[in-house]
Amino acid sequence: MKILAIDSSAVSCSVALSNDSEVVASEFVNNGLTHSQTLLPMVEHVCAQAELKMDDIDLFAVTNGPGSFTGVRIGVAALKGLAFPADKPCIGISTLEVIAANIEQEDCIAVACMDARRAQVYTATFESVTLHRLTPDEAVAAESLAERIQSYEKPVWLAGDGAALAYDILKDKCNNIFLTQEDKRYQNAAKLCALAYKQRDKAMPGAALVPTYLRMSQAQRELKKRGIKK
Amino acid sequence: MKILAIDSSAVSCSVALSNDSEVVASEFVNNGLTHSQTLLPMVEHVCAQAELKMDDIDLFAVTNGPGSFTGVRIGVAALKGLAFPADKPCIGISTLEVIAANIEQEDCIAVACMDARRAQVYTATFESVTLHRLTPDEAVAAESLAERIQSYEKPVWLAGDGAALAYDILKDKCNNIFLTQEDKRYQNAAKLCALAYKQRDKAMPGAALVPTYLRMSQAQRELKKRGIKK
Repeated sequence: MKILAIDSSAVSCSVALSNDSEVVASEFVNNGLTHSQTLLPMVEHVCAQAELKMDDIDLFAVTNGPGSFTGVRIGVAALKGLAFPADKPCIGISTLEVIAANIEQEDCIAVACMDARRAQVYTATFESVTLHRLTPDEAVAAESLAERIQSYEKPVWLAGDGAALAYDILKDKCNNIFLTQEDKRYQNAAKLCALAYKQRDKAMPGAALVPTYLRMSQAQRELKKRGIKK
Repeated sequence: MKILAIDSSAVSCSVALSNDSEVVASEFVNNGLTHSQTLLPMVEHVCAQAELKMDDIDLFAVTNGPGSFTGVRIGVAALKGLAFPADKPCIGISTLEVIAANIEQEDCIAVACMDARRAQVYTATFESVTLHRLTPDEAVAAESLAERIQSYEKPVWLAGDGAALAYDILKDKCNNIFLTQEDKRYQNAAKLCALAYKQRDKAMPGAALVPTYLRMSQAQRELKKRGIKK
C-alpha cells in the first residue's frame, strides 16, 4: 500500500511517501516560508524521488490539527485536492498523536504539547509506545496540567513545540516529568505514514475529512466579540 | 553554525542541513537507485530549500563507515569535493554511532548492528543517550555477541539494518534484548547533524578525512587470494 503523508500543521512542513510503513522518500523543511509555497512542490519532489505518480497512491494522510489555523487548513485542503481526482481514501490523524508517537520510552506516559499561544497549549496524553489515548485533544493553560501529571505513577515525557514551555512551567511541581531530545520533539510526515498504515481501516472519502481546530480562530473571535455570527 | 550532513553508507541515502543542531531542511530516499545518481541532486535540493549556498556551510559531516564499500566511498568522496573549494572543515562520524543515537531509551545499552553480509554484522556498543562508547566498531559473527550482551545488567536495545538479523539469532540466548521500532532503526543525516554539532571540535580538513571499512573489500580479498598485493 502506497501512502502519501503531509504535515503542515505548525512551523515546519514535511512530506513522506511509504510502502506500507516503510518510508521510500521523505522531505522536511523548517525554512520560514509559508506552507502554501512549499507544500505542493515538496509533494511533487517526493513523488519523483519515489518514482510514483499521484495515481499510484492508495491512501492520503494528513495531520488534521490541532495546530496553526492556516497551516492545518492548507494541509487538509491540499490533501483533499490530491485525493479528489481518483476519489482515493484519506485519513486525518491528530497532530498530537503524531507527536506522541515520537516518544519511545517504554512504560511511560507520553504528553504531546503544542504552543497554542495566549498562554495555552494544545495537549493530549497517551500511553507510550502503544499510543493508547488517555485524554482527548484539548486547549488548556500549561500550568493546569500539573495535577494530571502528578497523578501518574510512571515517568511522563513531553514532546511537541510547546513541550519546552510546559516543562519550564511544570518541572518544579512534578518530579516525574522529562523533556524529549530536540530532534525527536516535533511532528513529521514520516511518522504519520506509520500511523496511517496502522489505522488504515479508519480511512474515509476526502469530502468527509475535516480539520480539528479546538479553538475559534482569531477572525471568529473578533466576529463574536462584535456580535456577528458566521 | 550551518552544517551539511550526508549519509550514503548503506541502502538508503539522506541529506540534512542544520543551523547548529536544529534541522532546517532534510531529505531521505530509499528508492533503490545508486547513491552516485541521487546524492548530489539531493544536496542541491536541500540547500535550495534552506536558501543556502555551498559557501554558507561551516561544517561538512558524513557517516564515514562502516557500511557498503561503494556507499561509504561515494559519501566521503562527495563530502571532500563539496568542502574542497573553500577548504571548509569536515567531520566523519561512525555510521554505528549515528544508528545508536536513535536509541533513546534511558539507562540502557545501545547496540548498533549493520548487516555486513557473509554471516557477520558491523557492530559497536554504547551507553544509551550519553552515547559513551563501550566497544570499538568491529565486524563479528552476530552469535558472538551473546556473551557480551548477557554480561550487561541493563536492557540492551538493538538498532541498524542488521538488528533484526542479530535479534533473531540472539533472542533465545539473551533475555535482556529488545529491537527498536522499524522507523527509528536506521542511520539518517538529520541525526548526523546533531552529532556533528556536538563533536564539532573534532572537525578536520577534508584531506584528512578517511573512510572506515573494517574489512577488506571483495576486490582486495580476491587480489589477496591470488597473492597480488595492492
